[in-house]
Amino acid sequence: MELHILSHRLHLMSILKENIDLFTHHLIKLALLQANKSCKFFSFTETTMGYTLIVDEDGIKELPQKEELQKQGSRWVVLSASSGPSEISGLTEITKSVIIPLANNNLSIMSLSTYQTDYILVKEENLHHVVRCLCPHFKVFHDVNGEMVPYKVDTLIEDQADPPIIERLPDGVCRSIVHPLASPQNRFLITSLQIDLLPQVISTLLQIMFYSNSFLPNPQDGHERFFSISIIEDKISLVLDTDALALFPSGILGTGTEEECWKMVKIGAGPLGFEESGIVAQISEPLAEADIHMYYISTFLHDHTLIPEVDIDRALSLLQNRQCIQ
Amino acid sequence: MELHILSHRLHLMSILKENIDLFTHHLIKLALLQANKSCKFFSFTETTMGYTLIVDEDGIKELPQKEELQKQGSRWVVLSASSGPSEISGLTEITKSVIIPLANNNLSIMSLSTYQTDYILVKEENLHHVVRCLCPHFKVFHDVNGEMVPYKVDTLIEDQADPPIIERLPDGVCRSIVHPLASPQNRFLITSLQIDLLPQVISTLLQIMFYSNSFLPNPQDGHERFFSISIIEDKISLVLDTDALALFPSGILGTGTEEECWKMVKIGAGPLGFEESGIVAQISEPLAEADIHMYYISTFLHDHTLIPEVDIDRALSLLQNRQCIQ
Repeated sequence: MELHILSHRLHLMSILKENIDLFTHHLIKLALLQANKSCKFFSFTETTMGYTLIVDEDGIKELPQKEELQKQGSRWVVLSASSGPSEISGLTEITKSVIIPLANNNLSIMSLSTYQTDYILVKEENLHHVVRCLCPHFKVFHDVNGEMVPYKVDTLIEDQADPPIIERLPDGVCRSIVHPLASPQNRFLITSLQIDLLPQVISTLLQIMFYSNSFLPNPQDGHERFFSISIIEDKISLVLDTDALALFPSGILGTGTEEECWKMVKIGAGPLGFEESGIVAQISEPLAEADIHMYYISTFLHDHTLIPEVDIDRALSLLQNRQCIQ
Repeated sequence: MELHILSHRLHLMSILKENIDLFTHHLIKLALLQANKSCKFFSFTETTMGYTLIVDEDGIKELPQKEELQKQGSRWVVLSASSGPSEISGLTEITKSVIIPLANNNLSIMSLSTYQTDYILVKEENLHHVVRCLCPHFKVFHDVNGEMVPYKVDTLIEDQADPPIIERLPDGVCRSIVHPLASPQNRFLITSLQIDLLPQVISTLLQIMFYSNSFLPNPQDGHERFFSISIIEDKISLVLDTDALALFPSGILGTGTEEECWKMVKIGAGPLGFEESGIVAQISEPLAEADIHMYYISTFLHDHTLIPEVDIDRALSLLQNRQCIQ
């Protein structure tokens, strides 16, 4: 198996609901009009609480430096796992080979699942430690001028200050879920859109991204606002409430019907922060063990797991059994 | 002939180039997504100097009250002239029956030509005086709950304080053009767009309206930036540089080819203000006398006349003969 350290260096930002109008101008240009072709990593997620942005160095240059744009202080590096020529699909494999090893070593991560692939984000300052943890499981490559070349992990000088690598939790210790879980009633689609069809859905995307309160039904009791779009290397991924489907021209999305719907589990009541490790592993480990398919999207405040509607009851029961709120 | 006093009460505003990002969010919702169907009069013009907005009472509610939105203090009323069932087409007739009488009586106006019709805007505070001037020429109607009913001009109490109506300039007095004229090299199209096709050109309109510096060629020497869109009672009118044509999907505009191009005469070097009367008449009178077709668009700083390319040399020569810069 191969681990690819992609070339993107990402910034994580948050915008409050009431301040989105200050950034609409710049976000449209960056994401929807694609004036700046050099921005290769763009992720935008709206939740009930606000907006999370993840963009690369070229993307952040396009955003105005205003105090209403709250930035997390680190630069984040993107990891992608593949089994030789093809990418590993689904978080099940990545849980075992990436998420659990990093959790065992107290390395915090963000997860960003898209329709096309699952990305694991780690802080650039932790990259050395991350690679030390993962090199037993992977051949590690990194992007040098657009080509994946072996990361010279052998030549990494093992500093005496480096913490020892922890291979597994002590026997008998089980990873508990330490944050509250919530499962809103919404039904979601996870789908793709061809980049050349973007101009045809700009009207729809504007409505959903910047004016959800005007164009989408207000979330009913037990529902949450959630929408995520990522445009990464010209691949568009969408996670959208089935309520938003009616706004799209018919037949334009990768999935035209509600053939497979997803339910969400939201992790955390208050902000999860960016220091705590193991949050993703706490959720993904029991689901992976039960072979339940999942997507996992971290945002500025909370994490979100998407689970096939047919598996949601089983998944919730598994997760609730692991809960041990501190 | 009939003069219709429409129900719109308009506000005139200006936004500097560098501040458009503060209003993009609200303008998109108001004009392009048409969330607020109650706004029936929207006009947006970009010039080299900045943006001019003219919107009705429902439109202005949608705009944030920020100091970067400079407002002209009056409310403006819209006049539209028609000869019985059909509207008078072109400014030639309107010049004789509306523009010159108002100029003779020192009443300042704004002119807003669209593809569909020509509107004359007068300050609400002057409406009584305006109607007194025009009632010899027209049957005057006004909008009452959506219906045009006769304006009871007969019952208007002639106040002793009312200035006498001046029917014509004194014999031998000729109306001179008192502001500098400039004629940029641009070629323009004046065209329409069906309202139900709006979602298909949102991408293009976004580029032109809010990001002209990124998506349109920089104006060459002797060229000016100019673009105007109005959406009035669900009728869209566009005045666009032929340079912008390439951004539109082919065949979508009312005029698909460059069959008739227009050249511009810009009136004024510094801001024209809103008090001075006669500016429109100075330009439109000699052109009307020579039967030269024209559109006339007033903005916050300058006025703009559009003249068929085939007539521009003759028009410029006529106008220059009338110039008498103070």
